[in-house]
Amino acid sequence: MSSINEIAKQFVEYYYQAFDADRRNLAPLYRPMSMMTWENISLKGADAIIEKLTSLPFQRVAHKITTIDAQQSLPGVNAIIILVTGQLLVDEETKPQQFSQTFQLVEDSGFFVYNDVFRLNYA
Amino acid sequence: MSSINEIAKQFVEYYYQAFDADRRNLAPLYRPMSMMTWENISLKGADAIIEKLTSLPFQRVAHKITTIDAQQSLPGVNAIIILVTGQLLVDEETKPQQFSQTFQLVEDSGFFVYNDVFRLNYA
Repeated sequence: MSSINEIAKQFVEYYYQAFDADRRNLAPLYRPMSMMTWENISLKGADAIIEKLTSLPFQRVAHKITTIDAQQSLPGVNAIIILVTGQLLVDEETKPQQFSQTFQLVEDSGFFVYNDVFRLNYA
Repeated sequence: MSSINEIAKQFVEYYYQAFDADRRNLAPLYRPMSMMTWENISLKGADAIIEKLTSLPFQRVAHKITTIDAQQSLPGVNAIIILVTGQLLVDEETKPQQFSQTFQLVEDSGFFVYNDVFRLNYA
């Protein structure tokens, strides 16, 4: 299990660093078959996903990861399911918002995002 | 996509109703290969999962679902990835705790839980 957890940790740290630095950097992590659900909005494919992420209505964002849990997905393909919980701060806000995000990563040349579901957690 | 969302909604509503009524009712939803991660604890198989769920240190619990998002998982098998966010109240507590839970359901005779990751979201 440790290699799954290590892959998940490396991916998640890279993902949010790239997200916070420049969301366009996330494009190589998605493929044409990638799915994203972003707060009720369903997107398919790297182009649609990056267009959505780069058009989110804030200039700056900082993610802080609270937990990363990973499990092996279905047999027959090297795939990992990850649940991330954390907090994010946008622009000038001082009160962090909690979020949850589920990924399924699939390995080809490297790992790419097959499934991606993002939700803010409102109290 | 609507059938995936419908299956997810039916499963999630059934799951938490069964959880809140009697956690032993969840046993038929798991298989020997099912995985659960419960707040850092990794479990494998229906028996270990139900033993953990039925030994959680509260008598009563009530889950309230806030969001349910579902996506088709990998091709080649009928599998669905779900992210649930919600709140739960245990015993005499009056302040709900937020939680996030990721499921991967796989269809055989019905849908069973292949992956299950549960996290409380601390503010």
